[in-house]
Amino acid sequence: MRIPQSLSGDGRLYLHDLTVGQRFTTRSHTLTKEEIVAFARLYDPQGFHLDEAEAENSLFEGLAASGWHTAAISMRLLVESGPRLAGGLVGTSGELSWPRPTRPGDTLHVETEVLEIRPSQSKPDRGIVAVRNLTLKQNGDVAQSFAVRLLVPQKP
Amino acid sequence: MRIPQSLSGDGRLYLHDLTVGQRFTTRSHTLTKEEIVAFARLYDPQGFHLDEAEAENSLFEGLAASGWHTAAISMRLLVESGPRLAGGLVGTSGELSWPRPTRPGDTLHVETEVLEIRPSQSKPDRGIVAVRNLTLKQNGDVAQSFAVRLLVPQKP
Repeated sequence: MRIPQSLSGDGRLYLHDLTVGQRFTTRSHTLTKEEIVAFARLYDPQGFHLDEAEAENSLFEGLAASGWHTAAISMRLLVESGPRLAGGLVGTSGELSWPRPTRPGDTLHVETEVLEIRPSQSKPDRGIVAVRNLTLKQNGDVAQSFAVRLLVPQKP
Repeated sequence: MRIPQSLSGDGRLYLHDLTVGQRFTTRSHTLTKEEIVAFARLYDPQGFHLDEAEAENSLFEGLAASGWHTAAISMRLLVESGPRLAGGLVGTSGELSWPRPTRPGDTLHVETEVLEIRPSQSKPDRGIVAVRNLTLKQNGDVAQSFAVRLLVPQKP
């Protein structure tokens, strides 16, 4: 269990509870083909996310989850079992990449590392925390990397 | 209608059909509160995406869609009415930001601009096209910016 005890009493982490290099790990989630197709129907209806035969003849060379599906699952894992930040997980911007496709049967979890902590100049009640969230497969391959700036409150 | 005729016969755009500065515009989609809450329940179950009263007391100061919901809707708009690229819309990485929250009742559409076109050195059958996708609200405010590198096939 790598999530530190909060010093803040309510179990949530404020800006001063975070340190550069701190790491967090979520639980994991295994994707089914049905889940991949259902997400794609709603948000990314392209053949390589919907149909195995079409996917074979695409750049993906096989059925692949929408990158946004990988992103959405990563978010759910973080909300449910990632760092318990005071104020919640609120990202403003970041660098997103999908080095390889997520496939049916892949088991994903997210590892977070704190990269930088910066109190806000203009708003003394908060700071910006840069973290890297890596969404990893069962074999350690990176399915998604999101280096994101989060808004984190100062302890009142 | 700003989508150019393809020179390629099948109505799909190959690498040589694209030019820097080219623009595309999607149709629009209006979000309901119910949609925002349903997406959040599945992928981003935080109070400020689920409950109006909780949202009032959060950094968002009112119910806000998950950024991943804005991203997913933007993708659907692009797939259904954005640039009809040969090979589909396949992004590999990019810079993502949410300058302001998406709210219930907001009407979103996506405007795409081609920023850079680069044939692949290692794989002569494709190239990398950098585009900026801006997800805009009814009043022109930017809900999301995604500057993304897309894989686009060369004409066979």
